[in-house]
Amino acid sequence: MSDMANVPVIVLVRPQLGENIGKAARAMLNFGLTEMRLVEPRDGWPNPAAGPAASGADIVLEKAQVFASVAEAVSDCAHVYATTVRKRGVTKPVLNPEEAAREIANRSQRRSAILFGPERSGLETEDVALARAIVTVPINPEFGSLNLAQAVILCAYEWSKHHVLAQPTAEELLPPAPQEELEGLIGHFEELLEPAGYFRPPSRAAATRRTLRGLLTKPGWNHLEVRTLRGVLSALGRKEQNGD
Amino acid sequence: MSDMANVPVIVLVRPQLGENIGKAARAMLNFGLTEMRLVEPRDGWPNPAAGPAASGADIVLEKAQVFASVAEAVSDCAHVYATTVRKRGVTKPVLNPEEAAREIANRSQRRSAILFGPERSGLETEDVALARAIVTVPINPEFGSLNLAQAVILCAYEWSKHHVLAQPTAEELLPPAPQEELEGLIGHFEELLEPAGYFRPPSRAAATRRTLRGLLTKPGWNHLEVRTLRGVLSALGRKEQNGD
Repeated sequence: MSDMANVPVIVLVRPQLGENIGKAARAMLNFGLTEMRLVEPRDGWPNPAAGPAASGADIVLEKAQVFASVAEAVSDCAHVYATTVRKRGVTKPVLNPEEAAREIANRSQRRSAILFGPERSGLETEDVALARAIVTVPINPEFGSLNLAQAVILCAYEWSKHHVLAQPTAEELLPPAPQEELEGLIGHFEELLEPAGYFRPPSRAAATRRTLRGLLTKPGWNHLEVRTLRGVLSALGRKEQNGD
Repeated sequence: MSDMANVPVIVLVRPQLGENIGKAARAMLNFGLTEMRLVEPRDGWPNPAAGPAASGADIVLEKAQVFASVAEAVSDCAHVYATTVRKRGVTKPVLNPEEAAREIANRSQRRSAILFGPERSGLETEDVALARAIVTVPINPEFGSLNLAQAVILCAYEWSKHHVLAQPTAEELLPPAPQEELEGLIGHFEELLEPAGYFRPPSRAAATRRTLRGLLTKPGWNHLEVRTLRGVLSALGRKEQNGD
């Protein structure tokens, strides 16, 4: 993957379940984040429940570092973001994941860190105090139930948009067929429809032809598609001759 | 929440684990989506494992409807999106979740549906064939491991960005006809082509039907256009009978 975008560190503060640490690792690696830091994981580290939940994102877990405090975990980071579900009574800028990702990715120097709190309770006021800004996911006010890995994946996903993402190479869609081929198709339709009386009465023929042309022009069918349709019409024409 | 943005239906196609259905429901409700449809859930429905995993998003599960086929599940939807991890050799537009969400949210008429495949295998080619466009999450090419609920949450999250913001847009020209009408058109074509031997040899019939479906799905014809084409086909059918 490209190194153009500044890559944030993901800091899990006092995470409770190893399973959730594994899920967070998986979420990170899906979008190209590899550096996880753990502050006082409740059940110690390494945690045997993390690996299976990471579904193959082992490299993130192997490289994860453990710290005794949030301050130590972010000591080399110049920009610290604290994720919270609700806004708190703090006088810090509040960003959504999209805005935070834009800031983080566009920095040319110094690392950024994003803090995520314990599963049940979220970050404490003291943790948030270390951050320059708060990241809040705008969520259904009647049902806010984002788990840790989901909060991580949304932040990682937004960051990845700024990364030069090696997309699965999109094959060029074929361009619309040349007008000549489209005319051939329209002509073929008319040829079959004429003897079937479709264009009667004569007073309405022009409008009917226009409608038909409009229909067949709209799709922007490519060369192969037009050829297939010509085959369809030929089959319908044969059917008539055979009096099947 | 506001009702300004067009709200998509989430269709889980042949989901395997009840737990994952519950997690998908939770992901949806976090971002204000409530309408889930299930196509042939492997372990039947309701599924006792779904509730606990939904973490309170019970209303989504209670309202979930079960269908025997994808076509039936989306019959009232005019815009069908198929989520896939990789780009396939299909000639359909490929969108990321952000682009798809923008399209969906800004529609003033008719519902959209987003299809998600089974956990292990994803959507089959036949499922994708029903869709007008493909939604792919740009992902780490060296580690693509998005689970079902994660794919759902990213789509729901992107949609929610347009929710409150969505503005009344200029009325579209007529929207594409509901899927049901499109199915009627495709069926009419097949009915005429079958006796003409168009689907022979049998070994190629499935691929030929898929090609035809792709062609006819691409235009996004509206109700009037579909009706006109049905008239065209009827004329061609009559012609055969008259042996003109």
